[in-house]
Amino acid sequence: MNKNNPAQKLNLTEAISVLKLAPSTVSSLLKGLPSHILHFSEGPEEWSPYIVLVHLIHNEKVNWVPRIKELLSNPNVSLVSIDQLPHRIDESVSITLLLEEFQSLRMRNLAEVGKLDITSMSLEKTGRHPSLGVIKVSEVLSAWMIHDLNHVHQISKTISHYFNSLAGPYREFLKILDQ
Amino acid sequence: MNKNNPAQKLNLTEAISVLKLAPSTVSSLLKGLPSHILHFSEGPEEWSPYIVLVHLIHNEKVNWVPRIKELLSNPNVSLVSIDQLPHRIDESVSITLLLEEFQSLRMRNLAEVGKLDITSMSLEKTGRHPSLGVIKVSEVLSAWMIHDLNHVHQISKTISHYFNSLAGPYREFLKILDQ
Repeated sequence: MNKNNPAQKLNLTEAISVLKLAPSTVSSLLKGLPSHILHFSEGPEEWSPYIVLVHLIHNEKVNWVPRIKELLSNPNVSLVSIDQLPHRIDESVSITLLLEEFQSLRMRNLAEVGKLDITSMSLEKTGRHPSLGVIKVSEVLSAWMIHDLNHVHQISKTISHYFNSLAGPYREFLKILDQ
Repeated sequence: MNKNNPAQKLNLTEAISVLKLAPSTVSSLLKGLPSHILHFSEGPEEWSPYIVLVHLIHNEKVNWVPRIKELLSNPNVSLVSIDQLPHRIDESVSITLLLEEFQSLRMRNLAEVGKLDITSMSLEKTGRHPSLGVIKVSEVLSAWMIHDLNHVHQISKTISHYFNSLAGPYREFLKILDQ
């Protein structure tokens, strides 16, 4: 096995198995955290771990699968722009409820992907993204996977920065604190 | 609540609740991954997700709690240097077994911390780290928490880099790919 050989082509079964992991990963990171860490943000423009979860849920509703369906059904469609967060955010909703909502939306979305009978030909179908230009179905699926990992990283970073000043000389060894 | 106010002082109960999260987070990230991604590394000197887990397990055995005990029992002790990985790594051990080992070592270590009757005074006890100089018990506990998050980040980054070339123009939006 070549250990340094990255993916050259999207494997749909593999993508679905990776996409299944995000709800339990985010749940493990967030469910035992005290509220002041869940709602900690590094500045007024930065997202707390709680808001990252709101963003992930919002994307399940308006971004990935709705866009894949548009690209599959409407050749060279021009996709409309979407917001990063819902217009109204109610931070009194419990983290448990949000985690359940993310899990249930993700499972429903993956079930929908399964029903779309995506072939290697349909993975190549394209449309126009409002800011990125021409994108393919395979790129939306790949971005969906990486987007999860991007936000797992963001949550880890924010929690670690909450504890930043406590690590003393160890900070030198902990690269996440420099990000 | 001031949403931008990071921790100023270690809260031991909070630290233990954060330290409990790592085994399930790492398990969620790794348990559904195909073997070629588990063993994917970005270069000969880089760690695959599998090796990161080996490192986390090794640290449970030789680093955090053994060092806290030394600092507590032996004033101004000089700690010995430890290796980042065990001398022999058997990559045929299943990921499931390694995840169980990490979970069980972490739970045992946290139970040991509970038995040490750590007070705010003992959190200030110090010793000499072989490369970092003088460190406190509170700094070892804080570094332990951040170290988990650092490696959650590293695993997320490695998996996302495995898929890097598939995301097309979306790469511009996915900061984790630049790391």
